Amino acid sequence: MSSESKITEYFAAAQQLDPVRFPIGIGDDMAQICTEDIKSVLVTTDMLLDGTHFDLSGGDRLELVGYKSMAASLSDCAAMASIPVAAVVSVALPAGFGEDKLKRLHAGILDAASRYNCPLIGGDITGWKSSDDRLAVSVTMFSKLPLGAEPIKRSTAQPGDRIYVTGSLGGSIRGRHLEFTPRIEEALRLRGLAKITAMMDISDGLSTDLNHICRLSGVGAVVYAEKIPVSSLPDVDLSSALNDGEDFELLFTVAAKDSGGLESGWKMPAKITCIGEVTDKKDVMIEFPDGRIEPLRAGGYDHLNKE
Amino acid sequence: MSSESKITEYFAAAQQLDPVRFPIGIGDDMAQICTEDIKSVLVTTDMLLDGTHFDLSGGDRLELVGYKSMAASLSDCAAMASIPVAAVVSVALPAGFGEDKLKRLHAGILDAASRYNCPLIGGDITGWKSSDDRLAVSVTMFSKLPLGAEPIKRSTAQPGDRIYVTGSLGGSIRGRHLEFTPRIEEALRLRGLAKITAMMDISDGLSTDLNHICRLSGVGAVVYAEKIPVSSLPDVDLSSALNDGEDFELLFTVAAKDSGGLESGWKMPAKITCIGEVTDKKDVMIEFPDGRIEPLRAGGYDHLNKE
Repeated sequence: MSSESKITEYFAAAQQLDPVRFPIGIGDDMAQICTEDIKSVLVTTDMLLDGTHFDLSGGDRLELVGYKSMAASLSDCAAMASIPVAAVVSVALPAGFGEDKLKRLHAGILDAASRYNCPLIGGDITGWKSSDDRLAVSVTMFSKLPLGAEPIKRSTAQPGDRIYVTGSLGGSIRGRHLEFTPRIEEALRLRGLAKITAMMDISDGLSTDLNHICRLSGVGAVVYAEKIPVSSLPDVDLSSALNDGEDFELLFTVAAKDSGGLESGWKMPAKITCIGEVTDKKDVMIEFPDGRIEPLRAGGYDHLNKE
Repeated sequence: MSSESKITEYFAAAQQLDPVRFPIGIGDDMAQICTEDIKSVLVTTDMLLDGTHFDLSGGDRLELVGYKSMAASLSDCAAMASIPVAAVVSVALPAGFGEDKLKRLHAGILDAASRYNCPLIGGDITGWKSSDDRLAVSVTMFSKLPLGAEPIKRSTAQPGDRIYVTGSLGGSIRGRHLEFTPRIEEALRLRGLAKITAMMDISDGLSTDLNHICRLSGVGAVVYAEKIPVSSLPDVDLSSALNDGEDFELLFTVAAKDSGGLESGWKMPAKITCIGEVTDKKDVMIEFPDGRIEPLRAGGYDHLNKE
């Protein structure tokens, strides 16, 4: 379990949330608020940092930084198969950042807002005291469920379910991470074709995020190495596809009986690939074409690759 | 007009928001979302930065930093006379920050959450690459309106209204800013006693924030120097009371006819003080006991004081 997962579970345990008002709290892609006045709103918050999630000194364009900041939250909306409604954005600007650069960042935010029909409705502009401090962008986004639908959680995968991913994996950090397409349409299409038992977006890498779904669902999994859709980007191998972060593809599980209908009914440009199965064990394993079966640890595929 | 106000107006103008779904957009204390599914939710986001809003190297305690981060947003909930519902918090941690410090920050957040019945329901923990980068805390908070009530905006002050503030002003930076009481109860009490025509919380200083209400409402104002409730903290003078930031008191306007009932009905520990009147001019003025009347510019009282 990663240290972030551990601390998240500590935070989740520190407070008893009313399950009627907050059916989904800390630990999923989005939280859910349900009150008489609010009925139902899903919410996600993400902070993106210069040097960690983008690199201004390396030449990343501010328009793309703005776009990515929104797209990361839009990807969370997709992970719940929900419909984006609006966003608020707060920014921490290095001293002397200047209005022109802020407007370029804003233009990227609005680009994503308009492409995905998720307007920017508020925000906060704050400034660091020093020009050595770095840009931080925090996006909080709200979404709604399709009429009568329930959110799709991480914690509800069942033994026997098939495990799928959208698109292809690995190498995102070499550019795609700034311009990826959040899988909102795909997620809503999935709802129409099958009962999706669990879903999340792949932000920390498939190996980490599959472990996450399994731990939260109290299940295990086996994935087949030759089924993993490795990106065709240069220098991407199985290890990258399993461990690189920021793919922002969907990782989801469906009952085995729904698998055929899903695949025959799927007619979207982004492919879906069945990569394995949920098991009733506690371990997440990877099976190689030669029959070897090894544990697939969170972010821990490298050591396998070297054997 | 401050450069932040200017850029905020630029951002507000850059997008046409649907007035049914988003009755209040960029530029008020909180935005409002109204859809069939969501009915009505108010939302505010604030980013607090080490070195700007708190000072870890100066010894500010992390518990108080967590408390203040929540309290600043709770103060926005008060400014709309709304009832806090929940919050999400994202943090940017310097490299090597450590779990213990994060838990202390979290304890302060939970302290505010529990005092004001506003649970933490989600968040994001991110890390800077360097230990030289500084702590940032971004809080997004949701609130609801009392049954049948409308939000109280900044832009609806009317000529002839009386101008009030809660509490006393100035010198907050010398400690109080980390431990202030957001005026949620007071704001809800105000609703019961009078029609509050406009309201905001004083975060940038009375002179700046009163100019803000007047510009957004298309009105002017005159305030009386001897009426300003100057804080009894050491070294606070009229200039501090007018210009210091982070008072987090309420600044509001009421129709003159409601003024008497408000004052006689008010029975709360925090005092309210009538400091002036809204005018049909465009200027915000300050009148001194000797009869001098001068413009009260945003953050611009210092030059007067030196005359």
